[in-house]
Amino acid sequence: MKDTATTVMERCELLSNISEDAEGICRPYGCESMREVNKIVSGWMHSAGMTTRHDAIGNLIGRYEGTGGKTLILGSHLDTVRDAGKYDGILGVMVAVACVEKLGGEKIPFSIEVAAFADEEGLRFGTTYLGSSVYAGAFDEARLELEDRDEVSLARAVRDFGGEPDALVNGGRGNGDLLGYCEVHIEQGPVLENKDLPVGVVTGIQSQSRIQASFTGVAGHAGTVPMEGRKDALCAAAEFILEVERTAKAEPDSVATVGEVNVLPGASNVISGETRVSLDLRHPDDAARERLRDHLRSRAADIVASRNCGHSWEVRQENAVIPMDDRLTDILGKAMESSGLPVCRIPSGAGHDAAQMASLTAPAMLFVRCEGGISHNPAESVTKEDVGVAIDVVSRFIEILAEDES
Amino acid sequence: MKDTATTVMERCELLSNISEDAEGICRPYGCESMREVNKIVSGWMHSAGMTTRHDAIGNLIGRYEGTGGKTLILGSHLDTVRDAGKYDGILGVMVAVACVEKLGGEKIPFSIEVAAFADEEGLRFGTTYLGSSVYAGAFDEARLELEDRDEVSLARAVRDFGGEPDALVNGGRGNGDLLGYCEVHIEQGPVLENKDLPVGVVTGIQSQSRIQASFTGVAGHAGTVPMEGRKDALCAAAEFILEVERTAKAEPDSVATVGEVNVLPGASNVISGETRVSLDLRHPDDAARERLRDHLRSRAADIVASRNCGHSWEVRQENAVIPMDDRLTDILGKAMESSGLPVCRIPSGAGHDAAQMASLTAPAMLFVRCEGGISHNPAESVTKEDVGVAIDVVSRFIEILAEDES
Repeated sequence: MKDTATTVMERCELLSNISEDAEGICRPYGCESMREVNKIVSGWMHSAGMTTRHDAIGNLIGRYEGTGGKTLILGSHLDTVRDAGKYDGILGVMVAVACVEKLGGEKIPFSIEVAAFADEEGLRFGTTYLGSSVYAGAFDEARLELEDRDEVSLARAVRDFGGEPDALVNGGRGNGDLLGYCEVHIEQGPVLENKDLPVGVVTGIQSQSRIQASFTGVAGHAGTVPMEGRKDALCAAAEFILEVERTAKAEPDSVATVGEVNVLPGASNVISGETRVSLDLRHPDDAARERLRDHLRSRAADIVASRNCGHSWEVRQENAVIPMDDRLTDILGKAMESSGLPVCRIPSGAGHDAAQMASLTAPAMLFVRCEGGISHNPAESVTKEDVGVAIDVVSRFIEILAEDES
Repeated sequence: MKDTATTVMERCELLSNISEDAEGICRPYGCESMREVNKIVSGWMHSAGMTTRHDAIGNLIGRYEGTGGKTLILGSHLDTVRDAGKYDGILGVMVAVACVEKLGGEKIPFSIEVAAFADEEGLRFGTTYLGSSVYAGAFDEARLELEDRDEVSLARAVRDFGGEPDALVNGGRGNGDLLGYCEVHIEQGPVLENKDLPVGVVTGIQSQSRIQASFTGVAGHAGTVPMEGRKDALCAAAEFILEVERTAKAEPDSVATVGEVNVLPGASNVISGETRVSLDLRHPDDAARERLRDHLRSRAADIVASRNCGHSWEVRQENAVIPMDDRLTDILGKAMESSGLPVCRIPSGAGHDAAQMASLTAPAMLFVRCEGGISHNPAESVTKEDVGVAIDVVSRFIEILAEDES
């Protein structure tokens, strides 16, 4: 019989073939490949002894009934960035399903829900945690107006995906019965690899600002407008991009990234009249992040002032530091010790659904080592052995919790 | 009865409503709106006493038969950039049709062909003069492999537009009978406005390089890859964009523009692994342009070397300076004098179909003043009075040529 870790590796491999792009993995919210992945994972949940349902935004929820009235949530997300790896999000859902499957129908004192969220990355609408925000009952109604690149609104996308846009605000599962939420995720950083450890317990998730900045100049003909009179929006944006890099390099522990640029009108022989850029800014300390954010806004203003250009600045999302729950984190530590592992506690550089789930219930996270810390990249890689350790730790976590609750 | 200039203004206005975009004018090669515009202009050609045909790439050609065996070509293009003005290209075709209409069926010693080219701007395939290159018999077969953003090849686009990709290379009209080519175009620069003149005779078209440069780094997660280890392709590209601006500002008479940026993978929370930029470089002197081009290439290499990144550099198109024909230019000058205008001779900062037509026959161009020199912009504006002057000058040009040829 195949061991559970092999099954998880094979399932991650299989899902990596289901993509919107002919080459590379890409599964934004609401796309056809997302629908197909939900169907397949739903089948695996049934095999593991769960009933399944979709909520108002299309999150897939599997439920394994326990003897008592309480519920533990395990999970992560099934959407991806563009040209993604095979494990970011997916691994957490696959490990959760595997841990339930390992119970083999045995009745434990609480139920387990496995949540497979439909949008964590925010690739399509530029805002993270869409799926878990609905499940957690923390969906912000204003987001229904958001539009993707093709000017399709979120409301329309939810409807097309089979969901109910009107039910997003009140579509949360409620928390009267909850014991907590535990998410397994690849580390996406180099710490565990440097310490030569398969897994680590997360202490908290660092704070983040997501900003959309727009630089405006005057469009014109590339051949006839002299250099001196130009108001080139892209040149202003380029200055800002380098300023973002310089600022984050000078501030220890901070990271800042421009990952999207939209040059308008976007023809090789036309001077740009407007250029929009995304800014992703993170720091383990809220106040430090806010100081950096305000500094960059003022630098953007300086840049456009010196170029006679204009700019706008829209904070699309901000997340404060999210500490993990002490009790669940301690239980994860005990589970690691009973597997003969040293307990490594590390902060998370990336945001995760656990950040959103913290508004609903007590959160905990287990990181799995990934090669070179590489993620959001086809080279994302984990070993079957490390996945086996993660399955063991979560299974032991469920056992200890079951002892506590019985 | 309406005067001819009013008719031309009304026709430019009407065609401005036929666009691929809901807001703003956009007519790339081969699109539905291009097809519709060809139909409408074909009708106006018939009214003016011309027969019409489409050539292998879908250029619309109207022909007005004369008594002798020779032919004069008038024309310009009907495609546009994105978010374009109403007059760039269109005005030249409308003035040409109006001048033929003014003949009122009168037989002159040579035939006139009005060429309405289907692609001058190169919006869809990134290469200019596609339409006139076919008509001039100068089409480069290698271009059939070019692909648009949706990976549609030029060959397929030509077929979809009703043309014959296999006939592009040998689809030229030949030049055994030609007297020359005369194109009316808005100036797209500030010279005529500054001199308070409605029209000017073009001396030549400046040289141009169109380059596609790609910067390569390593994609990664915006939250977990520390600033120090990053190889951010977009930051390298931003440095290059500012270097292009700095270099062109320092070199008198040159203009250099980055108008397109493609950030890959292009998500707000992913460090760019590759960023591609267009470069449009122009100078009235060939040697100076080549020196600038080589300098920028070496600066791109310096930038990536200092960042441990890579880059590629593809020269997509180069055009040497194109002088206009002395005889036709002199006749245009005489036509202006006989309209009581001073003869203003100016170089062209922009490329035009006349540059391609120069490989077929003797080229000449007449510039029309446009407000603020603004072009490739919805604010493009010409006055009815200036258009009237252009019609008079071209009509007088035809008369003088008819006297010479009879």
